[in-house]
Amino acid sequence: MPPQEAPTAAMLVIGNEILSGRTQDKNVVHVAKRMSDLGVRLSEVRVVPDVRDRIVAAVRELSSAWDYLITTGGIGPTHDDITTECVAAAMGVEVERNAEAHRRLRAHYEGTEIELNEARLRMANIPVGATLIDNPVSAAPGFRLANVFVLAGVPAIMKAMLAVLEPQLVRGPPLRSRTLVVSRPEGLIAGDLAAVAAEYPDVDIGSYPFYRPPDIGTSLVLRAADPDRLDQCADAVRRFLTRLGAPFREEP
Amino acid sequence: MPPQEAPTAAMLVIGNEILSGRTQDKNVVHVAKRMSDLGVRLSEVRVVPDVRDRIVAAVRELSSAWDYLITTGGIGPTHDDITTECVAAAMGVEVERNAEAHRRLRAHYEGTEIELNEARLRMANIPVGATLIDNPVSAAPGFRLANVFVLAGVPAIMKAMLAVLEPQLVRGPPLRSRTLVVSRPEGLIAGDLAAVAAEYPDVDIGSYPFYRPPDIGTSLVLRAADPDRLDQCADAVRRFLTRLGAPFREEP
Repeated sequence: MPPQEAPTAAMLVIGNEILSGRTQDKNVVHVAKRMSDLGVRLSEVRVVPDVRDRIVAAVRELSSAWDYLITTGGIGPTHDDITTECVAAAMGVEVERNAEAHRRLRAHYEGTEIELNEARLRMANIPVGATLIDNPVSAAPGFRLANVFVLAGVPAIMKAMLAVLEPQLVRGPPLRSRTLVVSRPEGLIAGDLAAVAAEYPDVDIGSYPFYRPPDIGTSLVLRAADPDRLDQCADAVRRFLTRLGAPFREEP
Repeated sequence: MPPQEAPTAAMLVIGNEILSGRTQDKNVVHVAKRMSDLGVRLSEVRVVPDVRDRIVAAVRELSSAWDYLITTGGIGPTHDDITTECVAAAMGVEVERNAEAHRRLRAHYEGTEIELNEARLRMANIPVGATLIDNPVSAAPGFRLANVFVLAGVPAIMKAMLAVLEPQLVRGPPLRSRTLVVSRPEGLIAGDLAAVAAEYPDVDIGSYPFYRPPDIGTSLVLRAADPDRLDQCADAVRRFLTRLGAPFREEP
């Protein structure tokens, strides 16, 4: 049985703070892991600044090129939060005050000392035709418009929103993986590894050197949808490592 | 005196391990910080997999769009290290065995038990017309071809190579910055902040909420090339924060 095709996704990180080096992005690795688990192939990530033309162009390009586009950042109440209007422009629709989003914000702030002022009300502006993505943390929702999912940039909120939207994604065949950590540098095993890679074009074999002297070596990550082929490929790798006398351990 | 124009740069991260979520990228934040310090504006980051067509297309697009392109990853000895040939193809030149790179690898491995085998010799393959970028850690060089700088993906090696190439970059006017950490959520200050942002279009004002209950607030980052305008803008922000009774502290 040939495995079904995996859906593809791109991620667009919107924010000057990543490009200035102020902030270490932590959203990409989380989205990437979740997509892997869901059998969705994360195929591209872009980071662009809080500049309208750049965001609009990237949303157009990425939402056309891939099955899904996930954006993070730029949906708060401040002047530099322009993702909503940019996504709407990219997809050719207007932004409107969304009644349900408005209701959620009112309910969230009711009985607190926090005023639902004009700035906060901007977070109830949602493109026409979009569906809301719940924000279990701070109420202001993300949204889905066609194949574009618009999430917050604050990692705790992004994660909560992603968990909410995951059931909406078509899953692909899960990729299984094996990791072998070899206590030898890449150069020693590269020749034999290339031969195995050529023999198993359906197995993605990644070779990742680590260099933390005196701990120098190579992690080999084998990934495939077909568990039998993965097992055979891992056997082939174990065989040449043993022949080379290269010590290795397997990670779970 | 109007500040001179800042050079622009893009970064291309090449590697399945980032897109699968296996690895948390740490190179972007380092390159971003260094570019900020040098007055070079990092304008875009892309992450693509170890797939020839994707790398070639991204190198073409990004090297045309921006003054500099910095790539990380994919220059080791294994089958999945295809960056060198992809950059050469993107720029329309051939790859050759580089005599100086070959000499460095020989010198590095001489007197060790490590053999300069065929796989390791691939690391001496360099595009015609490129200049080498020293690798003080493990000898195998990066290279510069036109406006493209090709660096290793291992963070320690990438950092060492970046330090070597920095003197080759044209610097822009350094951006100065002020950070004010406000113990109030974004929504409270957004209205006044937007007014200040409109008054100071030459100052980039970023508003970054943090949400680590009970520690909730907003970091305001003001960045500008002109120190006088930056000071005036910071004063304007301090004034409205004081008027709102919003406690804040300044970070150095």
